[in-house]
Amino acid sequence: MTREELKHYLAGIAPADHDMIRRITDYQMALAKPPGSLGELEVISERLGGITGRLHNKIEKTRIIVLCADNGVTAEGVSVTPTAVTAAQAVNMTRGLTGMSAIAFAFGCEVQPVDVGIATPYDCDGVLKRVVNPKGTRNLYREAAMTEAECLEALAVGIEMAEKAADDGIDAVGVGEMGIGNTTTSSAILSVLTGLKAEQVTGRGGGLSDEAFLKKKAVVEGAVRRLQPDPEDPLDVLTKVGGLDIAAMCGVYLGCARRRVPVVIDGFISIVAALAAARLCPEARDYMFPSHASYEIGYKAAAEELGLTPYLLLGMRLGEGSGCPIAFQVMKAACAVVNGMQTFSDADINDDYLTDIRKKDSFTV
Amino acid sequence: MTREELKHYLAGIAPADHDMIRRITDYQMALAKPPGSLGELEVISERLGGITGRLHNKIEKTRIIVLCADNGVTAEGVSVTPTAVTAAQAVNMTRGLTGMSAIAFAFGCEVQPVDVGIATPYDCDGVLKRVVNPKGTRNLYREAAMTEAECLEALAVGIEMAEKAADDGIDAVGVGEMGIGNTTTSSAILSVLTGLKAEQVTGRGGGLSDEAFLKKKAVVEGAVRRLQPDPEDPLDVLTKVGGLDIAAMCGVYLGCARRRVPVVIDGFISIVAALAAARLCPEARDYMFPSHASYEIGYKAAAEELGLTPYLLLGMRLGEGSGCPIAFQVMKAACAVVNGMQTFSDADINDDYLTDIRKKDSFTV
Repeated sequence: MTREELKHYLAGIAPADHDMIRRITDYQMALAKPPGSLGELEVISERLGGITGRLHNKIEKTRIIVLCADNGVTAEGVSVTPTAVTAAQAVNMTRGLTGMSAIAFAFGCEVQPVDVGIATPYDCDGVLKRVVNPKGTRNLYREAAMTEAECLEALAVGIEMAEKAADDGIDAVGVGEMGIGNTTTSSAILSVLTGLKAEQVTGRGGGLSDEAFLKKKAVVEGAVRRLQPDPEDPLDVLTKVGGLDIAAMCGVYLGCARRRVPVVIDGFISIVAALAAARLCPEARDYMFPSHASYEIGYKAAAEELGLTPYLLLGMRLGEGSGCPIAFQVMKAACAVVNGMQTFSDADINDDYLTDIRKKDSFTV
Repeated sequence: MTREELKHYLAGIAPADHDMIRRITDYQMALAKPPGSLGELEVISERLGGITGRLHNKIEKTRIIVLCADNGVTAEGVSVTPTAVTAAQAVNMTRGLTGMSAIAFAFGCEVQPVDVGIATPYDCDGVLKRVVNPKGTRNLYREAAMTEAECLEALAVGIEMAEKAADDGIDAVGVGEMGIGNTTTSSAILSVLTGLKAEQVTGRGGGLSDEAFLKKKAVVEGAVRRLQPDPEDPLDVLTKVGGLDIAAMCGVYLGCARRRVPVVIDGFISIVAALAAARLCPEARDYMFPSHASYEIGYKAAAEELGLTPYLLLGMRLGEGSGCPIAFQVMKAACAVVNGMQTFSDADINDDYLTDIRKKDSFTV
């Protein structure tokens, strides 16, 4: 994919359907409850309808796309976890053994790990191979993490995954990651995009010592200062201080927007990729849903700029996409309200789904 | 049930098993993730284990018990909704047509409405009849809402419902309500129990006008001043300024604690009943789980005293128990982590459930 091809692809992203959003607002006002009393669930229903163009929506078939890659910046000691864990966990998530995948398994949510640049050899067919660079990225503290061509190729992988999810009839996609060192790259991207200082957007990641934490902040600050990514050019930012994982995640958001598939943000790394996508194409925001408020310090700044308030307050900071399967349940609850509740005057409801529910005389014990 | 019998019942409530809680803390430290990185999900797993005495728990069979009753205080114009709605919605929730029941239906969660004093006639077998007073309560702005005998009878109904849930093998109970006027009674109870002023604990409920809102606060303040419930005697508080619904809800919390069943709080009314239960028996707190942060002003004060932080931030204020089915999904996610994740050294895991999961070669797409 070239810059021109990306620009052309982005031009095909349309905003949400605001007529349908208004229609759903009106419909929810007519439901037999105090107006607005279901809060964010009502907003979710409006936004889902604005995406699909339908009043009645469902969140049944879901998939978490997990972009996996290594980051050369780990050479600076910015992570407490060995890089071999990227490969190990990518494999483990095909078996439901990691945090996110254990949760996804419990909810019948699909998990698709994608290798865009895992540096450690492994053997597992369940991890989809879309390797942009088999060594991962270069060390952004010393040089640009990628070439622009690599960054565009990673974006294209994400777009391909989103397009496939749309083709497969997925109701909502979750965006996860596995890449040791990627809270460092996320902080660097966020610092450039927002103009915030390194210390305002850099957290302890997987659990750094005080000394390593100081080093991490110095790495973020130094990389941004030396490489001087252009804040007005998100592609330049991703290329110089990003990662293959984050570039591919950014592509998933863009692909979901283009194909009108609701897409759920996980935590810190996931929301930084979402912010980069929104900078590339502001309309992409209409397709994004938050999940939980990550414990990582930079999450809040990114969420505020995206205008999103997370549904879940769980103090989580695992990554992988672990907040997505829980957020899908919140969205499912929102759909249940519009699909199941009766209106004050029940006259305008006659689709099959509702008739079916109403046939049930009782589902009490 | 007499005061003495209640006292005897409460003496049978034991605290959570702190040895098991420590064992689960240790086990979660050994899971292959940064320590503590799953935040509240880890706390939920510890608390569930402290209740059941088991490392591996499940949230599959769930039931929302909805205590329904009318409140005489509606004669003062404290609610915008006609009292006939109590009966109508109790019936509607047996058919999955209300907000809570539509959500519960989507998640396969049972709903059991119980009539402890619905004043409007209706005809529906799905609403369980445990009528303490067929007229509901008296107007607490003029006289005590109940006799102590009525209050104790309502408590006994809640206990019976919790005992039945335990007998039926329910993994977690949710506590809901339907009773026009019950944000007024909740505010009055909370004001007495916490010593907070009426204006600090009284919200707009179903959506009052400015004038009616002022009236509601005056009613709460006046009732508390005239009836002088004894803050050290929760039974006296429930009797004088409570409702049959809230007294019965309080009984559900106590019964769940006695039978060691995890019990989920919904919003404002539900958490006031939980606070009354915790005042009657502090150990009952060990069995309570929050769901969402209600939009009603008094919720926060009650949550803080109970030491609970809600998982969901959805701006909801519908009641009925509508936050419970979503909270069950959060708890289910917590169980999935302990049941599905691998440990750093996988040696100590060999129970059937895990073996079964590991047999799955892959659940990716």
